[in-house]
Amino acid sequence: MGARSITREARYTPPMPIEKKRLDVRRFDAAKMQKLNLFETGRFFLDVYCLEPGQAQKPHVHADSDKLYAVLEGAAEVTVGAERATLGPGEVVLAPAGVEHALENHGPGRAAVLTFAAPHTHPK
Amino acid sequence: MGARSITREARYTPPMPIEKKRLDVRRFDAAKMQKLNLFETGRFFLDVYCLEPGQAQKPHVHADSDKLYAVLEGAAEVTVGAERATLGPGEVVLAPAGVEHALENHGPGRAAVLTFAAPHTHPK
Repeated sequence: MGARSITREARYTPPMPIEKKRLDVRRFDAAKMQKLNLFETGRFFLDVYCLEPGQAQKPHVHADSDKLYAVLEGAAEVTVGAERATLGPGEVVLAPAGVEHALENHGPGRAAVLTFAAPHTHPK
Repeated sequence: MGARSITREARYTPPMPIEKKRLDVRRFDAAKMQKLNLFETGRFFLDVYCLEPGQAQKPHVHADSDKLYAVLEGAAEVTVGAERATLGPGEVVLAPAGVEHALENHGPGRAAVLTFAAPHTHPK
């Protein structure tokens, strides 16, 4: 006992320290859309996509992952299957697994789009 | 053929019509924290939690789902395991599967917290 006694509390180590990320991270590149990862696990990813006017994420499909696009800044046109919508700040759409989807910034300003996918489309 | 001919395009029905939701939805209730669902599938849910000052989501654990809390409005104290942080607008934290987590609005204003869990913690 004495110095060797370690309480339950003192021994406790959290599995992962709390870490804050910010939705207002941005990085733009004239060459192509930028993807900034905030968090990812095997179960999901949360990214901020940064698109200069004219930049796009080409149509593609995830067989087994659902995706959400939420515009944070600017405007972006989202295509999901045969449907299309232009989203402004604070608007969110779902691209369900198995449905082709795409994202495009027709300008005139930059666009930042919060993107979630579950499960992660490219797990490590 | 003739009238019975249906082109591939005309036959196409998207699996789900595009539907916009908004991050600025709010509903507060003096009785308890409100959960407003934006989207949910078997793979995830995306909710906005609305907390009056003093309201909280009690400590709980999801064995197999990761959760994200992103403060949209006001401030909220998030506890994850033994760690604790107060988040302001645009700040995000991860509560990994298996780790106890909780949320509390210490005021003085209302708080709105975007909450994402994958997989869905209570699939239909």
